[in-house]
Amino acid sequence: MQCRTVFFVSDQTGVTAETLGHSLITQFENYEFDQITLPFLDTVDKIDEALAAINDKAEEQGTAPIIFCTLVQDDLRQRFKPKRGMLIDFFDVHLPVLESELRSKSSPKAGQAHGLVDENRYDLRIDATNFALNNDDGARTSNYHRADLILLGVSRSGKTPTCLYLALTYGIYAANYPLSDDELETGKLPEVLKPYQGKLYGLTIKPQRLQRIRHERRPTGRYASMQQVSFEIRAAEALLDRYRIKHIDTTSSSIEELAATILANTGVERRIRG
Amino acid sequence: MQCRTVFFVSDQTGVTAETLGHSLITQFENYEFDQITLPFLDTVDKIDEALAAINDKAEEQGTAPIIFCTLVQDDLRQRFKPKRGMLIDFFDVHLPVLESELRSKSSPKAGQAHGLVDENRYDLRIDATNFALNNDDGARTSNYHRADLILLGVSRSGKTPTCLYLALTYGIYAANYPLSDDELETGKLPEVLKPYQGKLYGLTIKPQRLQRIRHERRPTGRYASMQQVSFEIRAAEALLDRYRIKHIDTTSSSIEELAATILANTGVERRIRG
Repeated sequence: MQCRTVFFVSDQTGVTAETLGHSLITQFENYEFDQITLPFLDTVDKIDEALAAINDKAEEQGTAPIIFCTLVQDDLRQRFKPKRGMLIDFFDVHLPVLESELRSKSSPKAGQAHGLVDENRYDLRIDATNFALNNDDGARTSNYHRADLILLGVSRSGKTPTCLYLALTYGIYAANYPLSDDELETGKLPEVLKPYQGKLYGLTIKPQRLQRIRHERRPTGRYASMQQVSFEIRAAEALLDRYRIKHIDTTSSSIEELAATILANTGVERRIRG
Repeated sequence: MQCRTVFFVSDQTGVTAETLGHSLITQFENYEFDQITLPFLDTVDKIDEALAAINDKAEEQGTAPIIFCTLVQDDLRQRFKPKRGMLIDFFDVHLPVLESELRSKSSPKAGQAHGLVDENRYDLRIDATNFALNNDDGARTSNYHRADLILLGVSRSGKTPTCLYLALTYGIYAANYPLSDDELETGKLPEVLKPYQGKLYGLTIKPQRLQRIRHERRPTGRYASMQQVSFEIRAAEALLDRYRIKHIDTTSSSIEELAATILANTGVERRIRG
């Protein structure tokens, strides 16, 4: 395994530099990457400090670091010239192409200038997050008319984090409802869900994985026993199939994948973007 | 205002394509962009469908769409040649540079191949999310020794969503504690927090904004009155200053900015990346 240091350099949060850089470096299996984020480099002094830190690292290691940069402000970007290291400057590469296509100059401050829009966006995310919290785990069923989505699954199948992610990332109002033993035994869709069949989406999971997750939470008793876990999953899948409720196996998916798959399969519109 | 259609094309979730494209198009203030994500295009048939959809859109609108593409698989990427539209192919642009720097071929499947790693990552995010939920709003104070961070602030200053975002995005264990009227009146740090001063971080907010947020939640009574809101914020800021607890104003920051700022200012290490 070879090792390289990677810097993510930004005058804002660094989230974009990290996302883009990460998607590239994960394509190289033979390398390990030591990742360092340098966010909020929004003055010349901070740029100079970052350059010094990168240079120190390069000398210490004897190899050139890889630097993913999303500096938006022109003056900062022009000043940011590392002595050693391979620089991938995302805006430098892609903005000129877009400027020529759109026949328009980009305005480096645009991202930060939309105060009002951002406030609405913030409110929406908060409101959707509160909705997910208040309608988690079947706690309340009286708000389902306001839900964009209602996730359905057995205990610990991943409903809560998926709902929270959908709320925080996309502003989607997602409730979730746990299928209880009684409901699984009758095999019938709970009455309270029947008016909302178009909003339902199922989460399933492999028995081995669910058993492990439950065992960590409550090691003894029926809850984490393989027999119980297998019964619940089998019954839940049968119920989902019977009512033709779309579902996804959460076993080997990341939360991003779950959320993106649910959006793609339901056509639910995200209320906010990126 | 001019308008353009933007496509985000991916054989996975589309999150990277959206992040890249969004960071670029927000630099053009004179344009409105109609954004369409086409995720999970992981077969030749799906690629062909996407090409047809993009072509239809171009003909319907009479302008060439802008297409941000993060197809990882070589065969799909080579097939994806839109007849009309400006294509920004992220991997096509950046992978060759990295391959040459690392003297190594990229392996297109790598991102998906890390089953075991992903499972640990998933577990960590879930565990951190549960920690945030269980230690929200001062509900429990007995777990603070396990916390990476304890956010402190008045009611509705943004503590819960910030904790949840830190958990889901970075796997950070973040609790939060609401400063009550009584505590604000004495001006003293609550006893239960004293052993954990190194983990505390304050959230403040502008009175007008807090008043509006609280008003939407509970329109009548003292809770949303300007007098009460102003008192709480002034007292909270005084308390944070007295105990030299770092803090950030949440009024005009996105959740991403809050989270990234807190990480940068505390040096708390994220447990997961990208």
